[in-house]
Amino acid sequence: MRIVVLAGGIGGARFLRGLLKAAPDAEITVVGNTGDDIHLFGLKVCPDLDTVMYTLGGGINEEQGWGRADETFHVKAELAAYGVGPGWFGLGDRDFATHIVRTQMLAAGYPLSAVTEALCDRWKPGVRLLPMSDDRVETHVAVDVDGERKAVHFQEYWVRLRASVDAHAIVPVGAEQAKPAPGVLEAIAEADVVLFPPSNPVVSIGTILAVPGIREAIADAGVPVVGLSPIVGGAPVRGMADKVLAAVGVEATAAAVAAHYGSGLLDGWLVDTVDAAAAAEVEGAGIRCRAVPLMMTDLDATAAMAREALALAEEVRG
Amino acid sequence: MRIVVLAGGIGGARFLRGLLKAAPDAEITVVGNTGDDIHLFGLKVCPDLDTVMYTLGGGINEEQGWGRADETFHVKAELAAYGVGPGWFGLGDRDFATHIVRTQMLAAGYPLSAVTEALCDRWKPGVRLLPMSDDRVETHVAVDVDGERKAVHFQEYWVRLRASVDAHAIVPVGAEQAKPAPGVLEAIAEADVVLFPPSNPVVSIGTILAVPGIREAIADAGVPVVGLSPIVGGAPVRGMADKVLAAVGVEATAAAVAAHYGSGLLDGWLVDTVDAAAAAEVEGAGIRCRAVPLMMTDLDATAAMAREALALAEEVRG
Repeated sequence: MRIVVLAGGIGGARFLRGLLKAAPDAEITVVGNTGDDIHLFGLKVCPDLDTVMYTLGGGINEEQGWGRADETFHVKAELAAYGVGPGWFGLGDRDFATHIVRTQMLAAGYPLSAVTEALCDRWKPGVRLLPMSDDRVETHVAVDVDGERKAVHFQEYWVRLRASVDAHAIVPVGAEQAKPAPGVLEAIAEADVVLFPPSNPVVSIGTILAVPGIREAIADAGVPVVGLSPIVGGAPVRGMADKVLAAVGVEATAAAVAAHYGSGLLDGWLVDTVDAAAAAEVEGAGIRCRAVPLMMTDLDATAAMAREALALAEEVRG
Repeated sequence: MRIVVLAGGIGGARFLRGLLKAAPDAEITVVGNTGDDIHLFGLKVCPDLDTVMYTLGGGINEEQGWGRADETFHVKAELAAYGVGPGWFGLGDRDFATHIVRTQMLAAGYPLSAVTEALCDRWKPGVRLLPMSDDRVETHVAVDVDGERKAVHFQEYWVRLRASVDAHAIVPVGAEQAKPAPGVLEAIAEADVVLFPPSNPVVSIGTILAVPGIREAIADAGVPVVGLSPIVGGAPVRGMADKVLAAVGVEATAAAVAAHYGSGLLDGWLVDTVDAAAAAEVEGAGIRCRAVPLMMTDLDATAAMAREALALAEEVRG
């Protein structure tokens, strides 16, 4: 079975670990969000790709869900001693090496997809990890600072401001001109099922879908497309998805997120058991819906979620 | 008193520490060798400038004489795990931060002299540290590998090969087209004395003198130029200066190095007491010579050497 998964960072990575356990023989292609990539200290940082790579490759800091296990922060402390910022982005020493290798390869002319493949040669994540695009896409967030509206990089909004100010708009700058990375459209065309993990529907999966050709390829693939709600009981399971949902005028409910993806894209939708009452509304919108436990408390619970998603896909396929 | 010092790495840096103690009120400008600069992992590394900066700024690893104190090597280990080399160059985590800042500033358009000044804002070395040039100069060494002559970067010859193969030629590639960095010629013109510390006469001081205009400015400055022999008892005090002296046809003796600089450039020369017999030969070549202890065993011994150099300068001035 060939599965394509659109993934953001922590939520997507953890779901993928469950999927690998639920479907060990599947050929899994992950299309990763690169809209939150950022240049820091002259280095290209790809937080979502790295979170997937480190999580599946066994290098992740399990507690925080991002960054490297057994990490030190000497480079960062020295940069601060030089007065070079930003200090709010937590790059560890081991993590720095990944960005140094990536930046060096990009400078040598390799596209991000080739760089990602080279990095994965080491980590062996057990999936094929593709960036959504080799072109630069950068998610900007419109916020009010001292009474003036300005656009800040998504990481500045998310990490520095902790999404504590209202987001008035979310713009994936460059997305309109971006092309899907080599292999993305082919993987979707050859997929038996497409999954949307409980990643952020706006700044993760939404950004991937904003690359021209990807949404259309998924809609036209003629295979079940099944998503898992990142909203449980009216709040994000983790992260601050409600803040960016508000920016695009979508309520932070499991049903509203399904409607946001829409029945033209989504065939099946899993909501948590606490949101069972929402299932009728989702089904009314033309999307098959099941209520199952959606808390990724451990690997077994996550694998069970992945099995439910695959079962719903088969049910949809009919 | 205004003193200009041409300096390589460890030997130059340690001598400068003694000079600062011997002449605490002097205005010292250091013209640093950049011929052994190297690009590693896409980063610009300036070993000699950093050794001077770290040594005088209190950040040096005292035992090895280069690199940072209290250093860790996580970035390097991770780069090796990615299969990215070279592994023979010992960059520590704290040291990496310096190269990251430097590379970022160079990429933003600052010349190396401005970058060095910015880095020294943090380290406050107590001297004005100038690179010999803002232009790229790279010392290459001609060696025989598997029966074939090829040119390797000086660092490869020095660090990877440990100078264990014969050097047939030493070429400061790019030197002929290089211009002295802003401030270098001015500092020499305004100097009261110019000192050559016991740095490598070929690949450190020789490379600085290979930048058109610097040798001439020193010769024309009309002030005492005094050097300290890096050769004691027929062998280098540290490092492998004898290997590169052989490449340029100069014997590894205190007198031969003085003659190599020449009386057109050098007014005074300090040899170690064990080489007292060589003093007559040096004086015969028109260079005032004194035999004094030249082992930089501690700060006091080094300060005494600096005082001897300044005393010889005054004697030459007459």
